[in-house]
Amino acid sequence: MFDDPLIDLALREDAGLGDLTSEAIFSMADDSQGRIVAKEPMVLAGLEVALRVFERCSSDISVECLAGDAQKIIPGETVLRFSGPTIPLLIAERTVLNFMQNLSGIATICRQYADIAIPYGVRIVDTRKTLPGFRSLAKYAVRCGGCHNHRSGLGDHVLIKENHIAAAGSLEAAIERCQARAPHLCKIEVEVVDIAMAGKAIAAGADVLLLDNMSVEEIGDCVTRYKYQAVLEVSGGVTLDTLESYCRTGVDVISVGALTHSVRAADLSMLFDV
Amino acid sequence: MFDDPLIDLALREDAGLGDLTSEAIFSMADDSQGRIVAKEPMVLAGLEVALRVFERCSSDISVECLAGDAQKIIPGETVLRFSGPTIPLLIAERTVLNFMQNLSGIATICRQYADIAIPYGVRIVDTRKTLPGFRSLAKYAVRCGGCHNHRSGLGDHVLIKENHIAAAGSLEAAIERCQARAPHLCKIEVEVVDIAMAGKAIAAGADVLLLDNMSVEEIGDCVTRYKYQAVLEVSGGVTLDTLESYCRTGVDVISVGALTHSVRAADLSMLFDV
Amino acid sequence: MFDDPLIDLALREDAGLGDLTSEAIFSMADDSQGRIVAKEPMVLAGLEVALRVFERCSSDISVECLAGDAQKIIPGETVLRFSGPTIPLLIAERTVLNFMQNLSGIATICRQYADIAIPYGVRIVDTRKTLPGFRSLAKYAVRCGGCHNHRSGLGDHVLIKENHIAAAGSLEAAIERCQARAPHLCKIEVEVVDIAMAGKAIAAGADVLLLDNMSVEEIGDCVTRYKYQAVLEVSGGVTLDTLESYCRTGVDVISVGALTHSVRAADLSMLFDV
Amino acid sequence: MFDDPLIDLALREDAGLGDLTSEAIFSMADDSQGRIVAKEPMVLAGLEVALRVFERCSSDISVECLAGDAQKIIPGETVLRFSGPTIPLLIAERTVLNFMQNLSGIATICRQYADIAIPYGVRIVDTRKTLPGFRSLAKYAVRCGGCHNHRSGLGDHVLIKENHIAAAGSLEAAIERCQARAPHLCKIEVEVVDIAMAGKAIAAGADVLLLDNMSVEEIGDCVTRYKYQAVLEVSGGVTLDTLESYCRTGVDVISVGALTHSVRAADLSMLFDV
Amino acid sequence: MFDDPLIDLALREDAGLGDLTSEAIFSMADDSQGRIVAKEPMVLAGLEVALRVFERCSSDISVECLAGDAQKIIPGETVLRFSGPTIPLLIAERTVLNFMQNLSGIATICRQYADIAIPYGVRIVDTRKTLPGFRSLAKYAVRCGGCHNHRSGLGDHVLIKENHIAAAGSLEAAIERCQARAPHLCKIEVEVVDIAMAGKAIAAGADVLLLDNMSVEEIGDCVTRYKYQAVLEVSGGVTLDTLESYCRTGVDVISVGALTHSVRAADLSMLFDV
Amino acid sequence: MFDDPLIDLALREDAGLGDLTSEAIFSMADDSQGRIVAKEPMVLAGLEVALRVFERCSSDISVECLAGDAQKIIPGETVLRFSGPTIPLLIAERTVLNFMQNLSGIATICRQYADIAIPYGVRIVDTRKTLPGFRSLAKYAVRCGGCHNHRSGLGDHVLIKENHIAAAGSLEAAIERCQARAPHLCKIEVEVVDIAMAGKAIAAGADVLLLDNMSVEEIGDCVTRYKYQAVLEVSGGVTLDTLESYCRTGVDVISVGALTHSVRAADLSMLFDV
Repeated sequence: MFDDPLIDLALREDAGLGDLTSEAIFSMADDSQGRIVAKEPMVLAGLEVALRVFERCSSDISVECLAGDAQKIIPGETVLRFSGPTIPLLIAERTVLNFMQNLSGIATICRQYADIAIPYGVRIVDTRKTLPGFRSLAKYAVRCGGCHNHRSGLGDHVLIKENHIAAAGSLEAAIERCQARAPHLCKIEVEVVDIAMAGKAIAAGADVLLLDNMSVEEIGDCVTRYKYQAVLEVSGGVTLDTLESYCRTGVDVISVGALTHSVRAADLSMLFDV
Repeated sequence: MFDDPLIDLALREDAGLGDLTSEAIFSMADDSQGRIVAKEPMVLAGLEVALRVFERCSSDISVECLAGDAQKIIPGETVLRFSGPTIPLLIAERTVLNFMQNLSGIATICRQYADIAIPYGVRIVDTRKTLPGFRSLAKYAVRCGGCHNHRSGLGDHVLIKENHIAAAGSLEAAIERCQARAPHLCKIEVEVVDIAMAGKAIAAGADVLLLDNMSVEEIGDCVTRYKYQAVLEVSGGVTLDTLESYCRTGVDVISVGALTHSVRAADLSMLFDV
Repeated sequence: MFDDPLIDLALREDAGLGDLTSEAIFSMADDSQGRIVAKEPMVLAGLEVALRVFERCSSDISVECLAGDAQKIIPGETVLRFSGPTIPLLIAERTVLNFMQNLSGIATICRQYADIAIPYGVRIVDTRKTLPGFRSLAKYAVRCGGCHNHRSGLGDHVLIKENHIAAAGSLEAAIERCQARAPHLCKIEVEVVDIAMAGKAIAAGADVLLLDNMSVEEIGDCVTRYKYQAVLEVSGGVTLDTLESYCRTGVDVISVGALTHSVRAADLSMLFDV
Repeated sequence: MFDDPLIDLALREDAGLGDLTSEAIFSMADDSQGRIVAKEPMVLAGLEVALRVFERCSSDISVECLAGDAQKIIPGETVLRFSGPTIPLLIAERTVLNFMQNLSGIATICRQYADIAIPYGVRIVDTRKTLPGFRSLAKYAVRCGGCHNHRSGLGDHVLIKENHIAAAGSLEAAIERCQARAPHLCKIEVEVVDIAMAGKAIAAGADVLLLDNMSVEEIGDCVTRYKYQAVLEVSGGVTLDTLESYCRTGVDVISVGALTHSVRAADLSMLFDV
Repeated sequence: MFDDPLIDLALREDAGLGDLTSEAIFSMADDSQGRIVAKEPMVLAGLEVALRVFERCSSDISVECLAGDAQKIIPGETVLRFSGPTIPLLIAERTVLNFMQNLSGIATICRQYADIAIPYGVRIVDTRKTLPGFRSLAKYAVRCGGCHNHRSGLGDHVLIKENHIAAAGSLEAAIERCQARAPHLCKIEVEVVDIAMAGKAIAAGADVLLLDNMSVEEIGDCVTRYKYQAVLEVSGGVTLDTLESYCRTGVDVISVGALTHSVRAADLSMLFDV
Repeated sequence: MFDDPLIDLALREDAGLGDLTSEAIFSMADDSQGRIVAKEPMVLAGLEVALRVFERCSSDISVECLAGDAQKIIPGETVLRFSGPTIPLLIAERTVLNFMQNLSGIATICRQYADIAIPYGVRIVDTRKTLPGFRSLAKYAVRCGGCHNHRSGLGDHVLIKENHIAAAGSLEAAIERCQARAPHLCKIEVEVVDIAMAGKAIAAGADVLLLDNMSVEEIGDCVTRYKYQAVLEVSGGVTLDTLESYCRTGVDVISVGALTHSVRAADLSMLFDV
């Protein structure tokens, strides 16, 4: 999983004018080698992006991976070794790290959510709150961290919200229109705000309910009443601290925007052998 | 400040297949209006990106800004009002918010650093640890938050690091080669690890010293010895908690990677009038 | 619905070197007007593409639509009127017609399939057999003709085929792995070749069955046995002549590659007023 | 002959979000092999596009061609064999077939026109009625089918039509202006509607006449009168059924829009070895 | 005539990081006005490019042209007036001038060649020796200067050179193959090195001869012998000083690489009103 | 140093429609070899671009360089040898030469300026007067010719001109605002028109003075007064003839627009072995 247009933007903005310092000092014939090392515990994501960035900087760089995406890494562990011409390696350095640190940051926080949810049989999913341009990469990192993906964008699945219902005139009308328009492979998800609306949505043919900002108690009631009649998804304000209480309700899915919208970079470093 | 290639990527990944739900329910003739509201205190950044995303979704959307970038916003404050065709507005929504939340997140944390540093006359600057593709936008948001920019990339300024010195044979040789190659508008910055090396660098003609991962005491010694002989920049592990102690040393500049590499999204919401 | 990258390719290949003849004869100040006329009965599709091509050729061209996409048009009917600078109009002409004739060709044949299928409550859907680059436009034209869309591509929905089952080891294993990986909004479709396999797929949790190249009798048996247990989709060799016999079986969906892979251009002409 | 921008569009629209099914079931290490087989008689075109699509999906795919473009293929004949990583092969499959089926469809119909025309020494040529984005590929397929190309676009050759003559004031003025503007390598073609106009055009210096929608008799008269004084091209409503009667007139060139605007896909299939 | 991809490259390389100085000093609300003035005599070319660059920098810039492309300009003459927001104007300045100075440089030198050749009825044409990316613009500027265009590139016209003849086995074979392959609108040009070869080429059906690096005497002999049997084009080492002697020979066309490969910038200046 | 977007534009404009002549005569299996030869003395620049163009035309072309960029070449000297498939070689030919002739033209004239200036310890620098799209390549060629680079564009360094000062209200205010905004690695350059203004600028903190269109005498006075207080750069109307008189003044830097805005192509030729 890599993303050429984003790699292009990154290399152009960092090295579009070359590397003033390195070009003054190194010749094109100089070679270097080194490794990327984790400086804290993390779940790795982004190796393929890294390989692609190196390749784009020079076809003479060779890389050996000592770890794999989705793998837990301990501090000091070497993730990959690289060797090749020095100037392209220095040009690749920051872009490689900027990608890997963000993606591993996502995978690492996802792993924490997943580890809590899995014993309860709950699936943690991402949202569309990803950084512009990073949708596919972020969703890949989410999977590396043991979580799952919600829809990719507005065009591949149906999610009926309040303003859709208002415009359609009724929840039933909204569902009907979406069923008529959507491919027959689509389930219909409806955002509901209380148990009454949940019941109405199921009666009208909803396949998935998004229980929006409900309390744990309300969610529990919905599960009691509607488990197996629809997939039940919880959304809104779930944190690592409160996750377990939501999991205990027996819902099927919990979506968490914070998996991708506020990523803490995982600490990785690129060390050149002297 | 906006960035068309990134906006293109964002709209394509979110709405490249259209909006299945909204197209099922709204007609092209439906209009809506609403506003973007802050849900927590923040320093705003990204208004121009937002305007551009709206414009790219439809030339019939009109927007009125009620606040400006770099301005402090209180919870509940309306940042802008929009009106226009409903489907393009719904397509714009997530991309607008994803941009504004990230950029305002940067501006907000920067403001906190700047407020501590300004009384000491210290300039807080960013680094190249920006998300791939976001360099220019991130650096703009940094300025909105009252901080300053370091170099834009590898090609516009000189920063001599350990491996450059090793390759050149000596610090003096490295500086000399960079002076020979760099435009005469460039100052020469050298990364130094102790006070001895700092002295050597100044003697060799360095204009700016990057004091790398030094203790507050060592930094203080460097300031005592070399203030006004070179611009003194501190780098490495400075946090909001430790910032003031570094500022007290009298250095000129402190660079902080965390301004841009681990951004907490500012909480903004797009509300449609019913 | 229009597609800028494709419009760019089209204008570049036809007029990248300008229009040698028109530039020799017309000045930039010359204006013309005229209309696009149907020369045979058709269902119209592609008006928005046409508008966009005109706009890309000159912002001074104005267009008035006298008909709408998805509408039945009779021979001689004027579809739109245009006026503006002559050279850009002549540059737009062929590209506008090439788009509209192909898309209206799709809508027209789709309408014939739909008119047969609708009384039986059967949904006719397209396939991925669209011309390279035309996926979104072709799927839009399909909808203009009263048919429906299957998945957009490989990444938005699941369709398990023979080689997936072979690789997974069993139909059950294939379904299970796809359920684990796919967003919870996805139904799982399985391609089956006989009634035994159909039963096995439903037992294993398939939501949709693709009855591949089965005879009308076999399909009838599947419907009798499995109607309402899964969505039943017929695929393979259905033509306008045989369509009704398939519809009579009571299946839910019939997919037809010929809607998009072998399009007969609808005959439209662009007439300039003398 | 291949076309990277079009291949990019095709792969992005079909596999931009990956292959949900195949990624759930195959690992990156899985390999497959198979072949592309003709399911009906055809003239082949598009092998190079196919090779390029495979290459873009993975550099580890290897392909052996067993037939060549422009060659007649019998049902059941294997056109190429492929082997390599399974997931990229499955991602390439539909795009490869969509290209080859369209281009071979063009070559096949062209071959039928050419076989009728060649004994008469008549050259069958294409028109600008190609699908947007497919101009170069379509023209290549036309040549694979034994036909020839008309101009590539508006900018490489001169074709004077009715509205050019009206604007120039006279046929003579139109020709003169085009001779003055066009490169000296260009012949001047004029669209004429009757024999009187044909004579006038030749007198004014036209090198090529486009006999527009004339009857076979009128064309015959033009040939009798003007053969060898100008290249004589027939255009308008020629079909496979009527072609021979036009050929018998002795014209030099017949242009046929249907070679490219209403292509019937040639039936090719990609079979994986079990 | 303008060229968006080239304008994009130009603005990105000059102002991709903004305008550090102007952004420090001007606000987005500041407006300016001024004009572009010729500082030496010239033939103008590039106004449309200039307008497009201004437009790309800001839609709020307005421009009034006081002269037209292809027009002779005297020193001190104002070519256009502009007004609008200051920062975008300053960002546009250098790119506007760099385009206009190059294109007007081409038009100016072309005018000198044309003025000598026109009395002899000789057409001066350009070559493919244009700067990479500037083909269309350069050819437009050539026409502004009263000269004509040779072919646009390798794909629109035929020019048979020595290595083509060697590969085909004979001049006759080379011509025959090109006639068979090229559109019937193409004349066939052959590069010949002496009068014997010229005769052979005409006998074999060449429409245009490129008399390559022949002496004025040899050219004269070719004209005497072959005038009106083929278009005669002279190529090789013609300068402003020697042009007239070539014109006197009575050839039809003279091609001059120096029109576009060694352009002296015309001196234009952008003055802001104080 | 090469530039893919520019190479793309160049190949597309020259060979986007293929090579009509060569494709008629050569088969894809034909191979050729040959060399690029200098036809006059020059300083070489552009080898890497040439290699890249060949590579883009075919991965089967192999090239051996017999000279290096920045090296002086004598007439008749072979710069590189090539071999590979004939059609791609012929497609590459003109683009390779167009790049190399322009870049070597820059390097050659630069070498002449540098040879005069170096004995005086003066650095000759380029300007932003480069052809649109050629900024990076032109600046590289300048370095090949022994000269140096000024800033890359508006965004990487500060240069305060007359209208900035007017807008800021005073020279001091302009400098102060730029110091506040620019990265701490930037020196501040101010354009001054006489010695009084030079003194004022230095007093206000300017690091570099651009002595704009001053006489040799005035420049001499500035040097006497301000040498070592600021870097002194001369700009305006310096030619090869007048250069030495400017050098004698003792200034540090002289910028010359003519290095890049009016390039005389260096004469190189591509010869195919028969």
